[in-house]
Amino acid sequence: MQIHELGEFGLIRHLTETIKPTQASTIQGVGDDCAIISGSDGKDTLITTDMLLEGIHFDLTYVPLKHLGYKSVMVNLSDVYAMGGTPRQMTVSLGISKRFTVEDIDDLYDGIRLACESHGVDIVGGDTCASLTGLTISITCIGDVNHEEAILRSGAKDTDIICVSGDLGAAYMGLRLLAREKAVYEEQYKEARNNPNDPDPEAANPDFAGREYLLERQLKPEARKDIIERLKDAGVRPTSMMDISDGLSSELIHICKQSGCGCRIYEERIPIDYQTAIAAEEFDMSPVTCALNGGEDYELLFTVPLADHEKVEGLEDITMIGYITKQEYGQRLITNDGQEFDLKAQGWQALTEQ
Amino acid sequence: MQIHELGEFGLIRHLTETIKPTQASTIQGVGDDCAIISGSDGKDTLITTDMLLEGIHFDLTYVPLKHLGYKSVMVNLSDVYAMGGTPRQMTVSLGISKRFTVEDIDDLYDGIRLACESHGVDIVGGDTCASLTGLTISITCIGDVNHEEAILRSGAKDTDIICVSGDLGAAYMGLRLLAREKAVYEEQYKEARNNPNDPDPEAANPDFAGREYLLERQLKPEARKDIIERLKDAGVRPTSMMDISDGLSSELIHICKQSGCGCRIYEERIPIDYQTAIAAEEFDMSPVTCALNGGEDYELLFTVPLADHEKVEGLEDITMIGYITKQEYGQRLITNDGQEFDLKAQGWQALTEQ
Repeated sequence: MQIHELGEFGLIRHLTETIKPTQASTIQGVGDDCAIISGSDGKDTLITTDMLLEGIHFDLTYVPLKHLGYKSVMVNLSDVYAMGGTPRQMTVSLGISKRFTVEDIDDLYDGIRLACESHGVDIVGGDTCASLTGLTISITCIGDVNHEEAILRSGAKDTDIICVSGDLGAAYMGLRLLAREKAVYEEQYKEARNNPNDPDPEAANPDFAGREYLLERQLKPEARKDIIERLKDAGVRPTSMMDISDGLSSELIHICKQSGCGCRIYEERIPIDYQTAIAAEEFDMSPVTCALNGGEDYELLFTVPLADHEKVEGLEDITMIGYITKQEYGQRLITNDGQEFDLKAQGWQALTEQ
Repeated sequence: MQIHELGEFGLIRHLTETIKPTQASTIQGVGDDCAIISGSDGKDTLITTDMLLEGIHFDLTYVPLKHLGYKSVMVNLSDVYAMGGTPRQMTVSLGISKRFTVEDIDDLYDGIRLACESHGVDIVGGDTCASLTGLTISITCIGDVNHEEAILRSGAKDTDIICVSGDLGAAYMGLRLLAREKAVYEEQYKEARNNPNDPDPEAANPDFAGREYLLERQLKPEARKDIIERLKDAGVRPTSMMDISDGLSSELIHICKQSGCGCRIYEERIPIDYQTAIAAEEFDMSPVTCALNGGEDYELLFTVPLADHEKVEGLEDITMIGYITKQEYGQRLITNDGQEFDLKAQGWQALTEQ
């Protein structure tokens, strides 16, 4: 059987569905943002890992190595925050082909270090080896959370309010923009180089003015530690949470499936930045499609009890987009004109796209 | 600067030398077989990670996927045992190109699962993604050890006895054999296929009779949990320990550098299987060179106090090969004819070999 017939999620399910934890200390295995290992002193340990491969997850023709290092760390930190936890340590493994210089790897590592320092995380180990082909980055993050306080995907309850942090779809628009400008840039740069009398070769750079936010969201995402702190300060404990890496639709379906419930979200409530909306229009896309299916937002999706409505309402950078329903009502999007659609987990099925 | 100018160890040192742990819970960061994170209930947490890349660490033309999965786990378990710890959980990340079928990945995962089950380790997470090129495997293992009882590389003391488990050089000879037979096998197999009247196509298989041990050591190494248990039962606590993945020379130099000492080992004491010796002769190599510089033995190298000499002497599958000296005496090999040589960390510098 070909792997694309199963897809990424199908393959993971196929490989892991028969795994049964045997260690007494394994509280949560495969199936959430992090695994949970029981600790003591009132703390549990969180473990998450992500692999980033050149050509699949990043294109070095437009991603600076320092940004790539920074982002590689952030995608892991985001998973720890999505459990309500605090990241503490990290291992960093690199597969490096000989086209990279020591200075290149320094740039990459500078980004990794900067991200770790800004979140107080120690680099404690890793593996560095040669690669015959592209750059490979594999990071594992270790964090902790108060005992039995990890926020799972499976805790959402009927009538809970669905919230998201920040805004959605911008990272995807940033990616589209970079991919489009890549060709233009290469062409213009070549011309500028061929004309030594060109008074300003920098003029050949594509003009990203007014799109800085989209580029930043794609190239330098920030894991939402601040949201976790804000919720804690407000005395709000989410019933379920995960980070949005594959698009809102896909993540909401995960929460509904794992919690055994349905949901209704409202198009008009989905937070979308105006730069995202403008870029979506340029690409002939609906901004809401970007928000639902565009990936790499690294925002937090979570549910809170209805009783916490007022507490959440005043919190900066958090938007209530709908509510949890009984399972039989399905997972539904209510559009601005009152129509209802089923949410689809389109997401980033890179394995099926090959 | 080109990476091969620094080499693998040089690059790791360059990238990590300025890293200073800031988390109170980080007991040991980069620089040993595992990182150590302080736990409680009298336990510390161990973390180790390894990345295996197709074409660098394995060649699928002669490594069956199930064996590869098994070995990928063992190399991680070996690092946990080398701290005197017990492995508990594991994350498994795979980068898979489309030339693999679901059945292929099942084979790989069967090997991973078998290895985990035989050592009582839970698979608790990972990442599965598409790869544009070869197969990528990144595994992180989490273990524990009694508080402050992790055995570091830095604890060897003058007059300690140097011991190794098992025998050395066989995995390297297995690799050489497989690489040589690969061409022969492909040729013979082609002939057998072109001749449908061949009564026994299996006869085209290369004859590995008498070399099974070498192949097993290369394809299906076993992490030495038994040695850790044997030492514990005998009441022996090593002063330093690491696993032998890059060759005895390289690892002994690590221990000496990190412990601030020298060593003397004796050629005649280095345990070498007779199959290794025969194969080395075929390849015009000194068996001792295989043991010193061949990689992937996954045996344990450790030091014990001189007072434990008698306790260790009777232990099965453990050989005393020399002793620790003061730093100024250097790291020396005494050959059978009484000559002395400096040990060299030739090891597996894959980054310099490209």
